[in-house]
Amino acid sequence: LKDKTPNITLNLIYKHIKMEISTSFVHHVFFWLNNPESKEDLEQLVAGLKTLTQIEEIQSYHIGIPAATNRAVIDASYSISWLNIFSTAEDQEKYQNHPIHLSFVENCSSLWKKVQVYDSVVL
Amino acid sequence: LKDKTPNITLNLIYKHIKMEISTSFVHHVFFWLNNPESKEDLEQLVAGLKTLTQIEEIQSYHIGIPAATNRAVIDASYSISWLNIFSTAEDQEKYQNHPIHLSFVENCSSLWKKVQVYDSVVL
Repeated sequence: LKDKTPNITLNLIYKHIKMEISTSFVHHVFFWLNNPESKEDLEQLVAGLKTLTQIEEIQSYHIGIPAATNRAVIDASYSISWLNIFSTAEDQEKYQNHPIHLSFVENCSSLWKKVQVYDSVVL
Repeated sequence: LKDKTPNITLNLIYKHIKMEISTSFVHHVFFWLNNPESKEDLEQLVAGLKTLTQIEEIQSYHIGIPAATNRAVIDASYSISWLNIFSTAEDQEKYQNHPIHLSFVENCSSLWKKVQVYDSVVL
């Protein structure tokens, strides 16, 4: 613990990652299932999303469900949230056209009744 | 380049970060401005969001505008997107109650006509 070099290095790396995210392409998808009560359908969708994580253009991802937070401005009506961080808009386009993504849409799109996408780039 | 140790270490760290994000609390806010054509209002909101980045509970953030992507499922009608990654739900709650966040809401809430929040936790 006397030698703080590793911590300083780690902090620099974390700062670098933080900056990378702040300049990235953010792709956030919300799914509303046809059968929101079906645990099987939820698991099938999650399994499908997990296949997408193999796509190398994805820098970071998060598969989520609504948090327990509860304010008027919060939409917690969706079934699954799928967040992707890409380095560039081009990488997101490659992801859209990737065979694994096309298979996912073909295999899983019958599970959802609504999908809502927000794509954001740095100002 | 013969010694691959640094790359292996970096890859491990990146993998760790990737996993950290995949188990995080995701807080994503979309703002629709009262005057979406006003560059001044947009800049004022962005300046306000930048003050929030000082809050230490924020692990990573992204301030964005709609990307140029264009499909029926994409909502590109918002003015500004504000994405926060927290380690835990507790950290997000601390952020909500942080003086800098309360000042931001007081100073900037007149700028927007609608705000939409999605909070997601790992399944």
